[in-house]
Amino acid sequence: MSTPHAGPARWQKGSERVIASTRVVDLVGVRYSRTDPAREGEFIVIRASDWVNVLALTPERHLVLIRQFRFGIDDFSLEIPGGVIEAGEDPVAAGIRELREETGFEGTGARLLGSVHPNPAIQANRCHIVLVEGARRQTETDFDDDEEIETSTVPVGQVLEWARSGRITHSLVLCGLLHLEGVLSGPAA
Amino acid sequence: MSTPHAGPARWQKGSERVIASTRVVDLVGVRYSRTDPAREGEFIVIRASDWVNVLALTPERHLVLIRQFRFGIDDFSLEIPGGVIEAGEDPVAAGIRELREETGFEGTGARLLGSVHPNPAIQANRCHIVLVEGARRQTETDFDDDEEIETSTVPVGQVLEWARSGRITHSLVLCGLLHLEGVLSGPAA
Repeated sequence: MSTPHAGPARWQKGSERVIASTRVVDLVGVRYSRTDPAREGEFIVIRASDWVNVLALTPERHLVLIRQFRFGIDDFSLEIPGGVIEAGEDPVAAGIRELREETGFEGTGARLLGSVHPNPAIQANRCHIVLVEGARRQTETDFDDDEEIETSTVPVGQVLEWARSGRITHSLVLCGLLHLEGVLSGPAA
Repeated sequence: MSTPHAGPARWQKGSERVIASTRVVDLVGVRYSRTDPAREGEFIVIRASDWVNVLALTPERHLVLIRQFRFGIDDFSLEIPGGVIEAGEDPVAAGIRELREETGFEGTGARLLGSVHPNPAIQANRCHIVLVEGARRQTETDFDDDEEIETSTVPVGQVLEWARSGRITHSLVLCGLLHLEGVLSGPAA
């Protein structure tokens, strides 16, 4: 490992102003400054609640996938279940809840596989990745308003192939699959 | 593959209003409606330019990594080079440019490995993943204002271990590594 450049400086956070506040994100201008050389400016930060995505494996090692219309891309998207973590809610509990609400599936041994930053440059929150095993359809779905979700179960190998061929494009879902692959190929698999 | 639910409806896009416009993103309220059942509402969409991230492999199969302070998370982040694609710029050309500007590295055979959506639910843009091989430090860096970047080269296997152990948390970088792993383990490797 070579490091041809000296280490970058830590910037100091200053005052903030909320530029816009919406139901899903706040857009904030945050002042930062540094020394040597002296610099100062306002940088845009998107604030949102933490999110959770759930890798739900059936006893047959199929993964629970969902398909829904997504307003951001104005199109359908193939994803794993997930959603917004409520204030004070544990990420694993949130994952179990979202899995049940969106698909009616429940499983065992839910655990946190990892946590990622959707975009460290401009976004403050994290997305947690939860693994649930032995998942089975147990209950009715309980969609949020404006949610309409199609559930399917697909062999893990097929899902990974879809991730690399471009059929699955949601970055946070792909992060979950990267972590899942590590677990399935690792000593604990 | 089982599909216990019927397919979700496509929503129709209506009028838009810009809630806030900044240097890096626009926050837009977009009206959508659907039928059967009839629903209508305004949904938040974050509009940004497309982005590019670059997997630059040295002849020794080390990956070029960068470390910089990131205002979104108020902390340092270990990433691959990348940035904003300029209007009309080709994603591969943008990747070559960002690699050179941020690290001084240049290589050969640059090609697009894939493209992902940072967040289909609320974000319209894409992040393209470019592979460059035979990368070598050839030129001086050319940082943007307020950019200060530390470059290192790390064996690919080590980078993948860092991705799964949580040392690398940037979701779009992890997507690049998922695609790279497919290339390195596939028939073309």
